[in-house]
Amino acid sequence: MAAMAPLARNVLVTGSNRGIGLELVRQLVESPNPPEHVFATCRDLDGPRGKALQELAAKYSPVRLVQLDAVSLASVQAAVKEVETQLNGKGLNLLINNAGVNSQATLQSAQQEEMLSVFTTNVVGPIQVVKEFLPLLKKAALEAGKDGLSCSKAAIINISSKVGSIELCVKILKAPMYSYCASKAALNMVTRCMAEELKDAGILCTAIHPGWVKTDMGTEKAPLTVECSVQGILNVLASLSQATTGVFLDWEGKSLPW
Amino acid sequence: MAAMAPLARNVLVTGSNRGIGLELVRQLVESPNPPEHVFATCRDLDGPRGKALQELAAKYSPVRLVQLDAVSLASVQAAVKEVETQLNGKGLNLLINNAGVNSQATLQSAQQEEMLSVFTTNVVGPIQVVKEFLPLLKKAALEAGKDGLSCSKAAIINISSKVGSIELCVKILKAPMYSYCASKAALNMVTRCMAEELKDAGILCTAIHPGWVKTDMGTEKAPLTVECSVQGILNVLASLSQATTGVFLDWEGKSLPW
Ligand SMILES: NC(=O)c1ccc[n+]([C@@H]2O[C@H](COP(=O)([O-])OP(=O)(O)OC[C@H]3O[C@@H](n4cnc5c(N)ncnc54)[C@H](OP(=O)(O)O)[C@@H]3O)[C@@H](O)[C@H]2O)c1
Ligand SMILES: NC(=O)c1ccc[n+]([C@@H]2O[C@H](COP(=O)([O-])OP(=O)(O)OC[C@H]3O[C@@H](n4cnc5c(N)ncnc54)[C@H](OP(=O)(O)O)[C@@H]3O)[C@@H](O)[C@H]2O)c1
Repeated sequence: MAAMAPLARNVLVTGSNRGIGLELVRQLVESPNPPEHVFATCRDLDGPRGKALQELAAKYSPVRLVQLDAVSLASVQAAVKEVETQLNGKGLNLLINNAGVNSQATLQSAQQEEMLSVFTTNVVGPIQVVKEFLPLLKKAALEAGKDGLSCSKAAIINISSKVGSIELCVKILKAPMYSYCASKAALNMVTRCMAEELKDAGILCTAIHPGWVKTDMGTEKAPLTVECSVQGILNVLASLSQATTGVFLDWEGKSLPW
Repeated sequence: MAAMAPLARNVLVTGSNRGIGLELVRQLVESPNPPEHVFATCRDLDGPRGKALQELAAKYSPVRLVQLDAVSLASVQAAVKEVETQLNGKGLNLLINNAGVNSQATLQSAQQEEMLSVFTTNVVGPIQVVKEFLPLLKKAALEAGKDGLSCSKAAIINISSKVGSIELCVKILKAPMYSYCASKAALNMVTRCMAEELKDAGILCTAIHPGWVKTDMGTEKAPLTVECSVQGILNVLASLSQATTGVFLDWEGKSLPW
């Protein structure tokens, strides 16, 4: 049955030119029931970093390339305009805030500028993207015209991290990375607030830890392939409902503490 | 017995010109066993906002006025120099990161600049203050020359908020204040990381929710007087030990979830 319907009709992914974002787009469009549109966004479409995504777009028609730098309000607003035009009156069902940056800064090495830059990308970015795409998400929720919450109706997925769990962080890391961990804890707070605030509008909001994944960020030392992580994430997304809005799950669907 | 020894020999409080910070200084120096030095810091000593603190300093000799703007690294570093001179070879036992700003910004009204400003004061500030005062805290821990952790030995107290609890936030607030809640959740993460990282150096680190308090920030609508809140906080601080480093407590000593 799950194979009959796409996960969501219209999907947008931020930071989709490499790593987990690129693989999310790939698996979505290669599924037997692909979405109608996958808005694959990244900050530099035409540069060398956009190449793999350009190739994917050439191969699969649901892929729509859109420039979107999550920290630039002007860029986010331009992306909304473009997506709105392409949706042609329809809403956006699923928004995946995947774009993020790492930082190894410890207590000793943390600097004001670096902390603010990580916070800007990992927290202000997702808030800004949600704020601007909210009318399109609300439209999707209204269109669905049914009770309950799901990714096929209207949903925001924030890609967080297990090291953003205040409970677990110090058990995982030998030397805590202050800026990164604090930014993901803040993103978890934002996720929970959004879930509460948007549930009456029919929009689900959940934080997902993708596992420790072999990407530029995760490095080759990571145990998990990006294929495996994304397969897990997409299965989890398909299972989300009003019971799992406002929670923090890993790529296998296991619940994580704040 | 508790009345025989001061809570800590040398204490520093940020944002001590009004509200909870001012009352912390007052109750510390008015106690039957006051600390030797209470470094009462604020960003504008000489302006009208420093008046009440100036009066307190004129009355009680342990009060040492020090200029400290937590978001300015230069100001924090100058404060360290001054405190170090006055300590004359001794360490700093208790550092209370009390300075903070509120923000009512909701999802609709949150703006990039405002979010960054709140994050800078409430998260980057405390990290910066701890980083720079760390040598003086370590000195105090070494001087104590005994096992265990306590505020009389060496401790960092971060004044957080119950609305920084990801678990509780949405149960308390009708419309979540994204910037403020996210900043306090991030501060809680920082507290937990510091506690883990500094315990072997003999330094305790705990997050405290002061209650909803009648101050400029808490407004007259708050149920708790600043006297009552601070009395509670000081009792809790006196009770802290290795068992309560890295946790989140309210002014009555009750444990709060992350
Ligand atoms: N890999 C892991 O082990 C792991 C573990 C836990 C959580 N995560 C989270 O998973 C998400 C994806 O990570 P990843 O491993 O795929 O990282 P990655 O390989 O480093 O890719 C990061 C992506 O984010 C994009 N990005 C960064 N800043 C952006 C901005 N301002 N606007 C738009 N896009 C931006 C990057 O674009 P550019 O190419 O332009 O830089 C890139 O596409 C992140 O949120 C990360 O924190 C990853
Ligand atoms: N009141 C409550 O109900 C409540 C509840 C939960 C948590 N808290 C927390 O308790 C702490 C104290 O709050 P309060 O109620 O006493 O607030 P307040 O009356 O607004 O006082 C805030 C203090 O912080 C100082 N400050 C702000 N930015 C600073 C900076 N960059 N450097 C140095 N000092 C700075 C202010 O100095 P200026 O005079 O120069 O502005 C002032 O002394 C805050 O961390 C707050 O978040 C309060």
